[in-house]
Amino acid sequence: MEQGEFSFIEGLKSRFSVPSGMMGIGDDCAIIPQCSSDDTLVTADMLVEGSHFLLDDITPYQLGWKSVAVNLSDIAGMGGKPVGTFLSLAIPYSMESAWMEKFMDGYQAISDRFGVPLLGGDTTASPDRLCINVTVMGSCPHGSARKRSDAKPRDLVCVSGFLGDSSCGLKVILDKLDRTSDANILIDRHYLPMPRVAEGLRLSRLEGVHAMMDISDGIGSDLRHILEASGVGATIDTSALPLSSELLSCCRDNGLDPLDFALSGGEDYELLFTMAPGTVPDIPYYVIGEITPGSSIIWKGSDKDYHGFTHF
Amino acid sequence: MEQGEFSFIEGLKSRFSVPSGMMGIGDDCAIIPQCSSDDTLVTADMLVEGSHFLLDDITPYQLGWKSVAVNLSDIAGMGGKPVGTFLSLAIPYSMESAWMEKFMDGYQAISDRFGVPLLGGDTTASPDRLCINVTVMGSCPHGSARKRSDAKPRDLVCVSGFLGDSSCGLKVILDKLDRTSDANILIDRHYLPMPRVAEGLRLSRLEGVHAMMDISDGIGSDLRHILEASGVGATIDTSALPLSSELLSCCRDNGLDPLDFALSGGEDYELLFTMAPGTVPDIPYYVIGEITPGSSIIWKGSDKDYHGFTHF
Repeated sequence: MEQGEFSFIEGLKSRFSVPSGMMGIGDDCAIIPQCSSDDTLVTADMLVEGSHFLLDDITPYQLGWKSVAVNLSDIAGMGGKPVGTFLSLAIPYSMESAWMEKFMDGYQAISDRFGVPLLGGDTTASPDRLCINVTVMGSCPHGSARKRSDAKPRDLVCVSGFLGDSSCGLKVILDKLDRTSDANILIDRHYLPMPRVAEGLRLSRLEGVHAMMDISDGIGSDLRHILEASGVGATIDTSALPLSSELLSCCRDNGLDPLDFALSGGEDYELLFTMAPGTVPDIPYYVIGEITPGSSIIWKGSDKDYHGFTHF
Repeated sequence: MEQGEFSFIEGLKSRFSVPSGMMGIGDDCAIIPQCSSDDTLVTADMLVEGSHFLLDDITPYQLGWKSVAVNLSDIAGMGGKPVGTFLSLAIPYSMESAWMEKFMDGYQAISDRFGVPLLGGDTTASPDRLCINVTVMGSCPHGSARKRSDAKPRDLVCVSGFLGDSSCGLKVILDKLDRTSDANILIDRHYLPMPRVAEGLRLSRLEGVHAMMDISDGIGSDLRHILEASGVGATIDTSALPLSSELLSCCRDNGLDPLDFALSGGEDYELLFTMAPGTVPDIPYYVIGEITPGSSIIWKGSDKDYHGFTHF
């Protein structure tokens, strides 16, 4: 397609009027009020062989795990609790059933870990490539979902964990870099991400936590979504970004800049949130900057302008 | 994959325990109780280029329409009201944006017709084939969803409209038969199915309506799902099957047996339901047989044993 993902999605939004009280396209999840006490959250992700994964590197177990993880991360990004998953699979004629069982082993492992059952979906045939769509339904107390649009000037900008590990792991895979023990940990972070569901739930109980989302495209891109939705700017101290020892070691070994991964790399699946000064989250977190009035973003300690990763 | 869709799905069911009160895999939709008054229904369908549709015959408008229609039909099959749709698209790099806009025209037309907004999804790139997944969320009063498992001996077996039109339309397309005006009506029934949402809602308000589902694989197959889930049998009078004049005319023109399409053809998207004798639905319907004790199915007026269409 000639145009990018974002302009196509903008076009979609303009076609549909969303009933009052609901929230449609434009955040980690849609929000659908159910009764006076609860809201339903819905998110979906599609993964296509050759575009999102290569079957000769990722294992079926990892792929099954990751298919669920990326969606649970969207539920976490709103502060929701996952309720059930729906799996659509287009399976190549040539695919062995043993491979699909291992895929389901990974799918089941993460589902069990987060206590969320598979409730439905579709299974069909594909002429060649494997295509996977997972839709996850979640819930939260009415009005408690954390949106991208709620950041306020003077809020602290925070993340829930290390940035850049996953994308550096991908670099190791694609460029066939040395698979040291540190590099293998980064690869695991890429293939077996751990969505921050419990952390998102805890944060959503704190009134001082304002905007929140999961980091899927790199904070260089994802932070912009929060700033645009909230009509604010930010100053980020790049020296405050949490970097793992594995990332630092792998970058040192290969002459790479860890900040490139931490800011522009994708698929961290950590939480990015803003909170009023004085808020004390009961999870590990790192303050990386501050929300400012206006709309500009300043990366202190770096002369680059960071953008995120796009799947399109 | 060596094994068929059904055994793979049976394996999936055994992996996950579904929380009490919910219903997972095995009916038209999953059922998730929300509060004391309402249940949420969820269904998903995946369509892959080359397996479910060929881009050189179906128009983008028709494909957009049909992607929603097949899911609304599942909501209708439970007697639910659609609430919102979630569209995941893997779009080939080479796809023109004008084509996608026409796809969305069809998607929007049926969405507007049934008053159901697009609320989310995913848009991503595919190396070659177009892949579409639509998930639809619906709702119904708590406990009112009509399942496959509720047929009772002596129930009348009914359908909401003509059978076989869609699959005969597909035959015209695939075998390049004469596109008479009658044949074109059958092709429209194939490409622009009209889900029986209002009819399903009306039926679900009648206590005498027991089992219900939509007809997607042909009643030869779909009726078996009801019989197996309910632990009953049926006698079907094949002379009572509602056949359109267009189907009869097209079959006469081409030396085809209309019963083959009516019983084994797929994608009618009519409702198949059973009801206690004396129930008076306020929709057009046709009585085609009766539920019996036991588990056998007798096709009166035919010497064939009918099975449905499978996408696998």
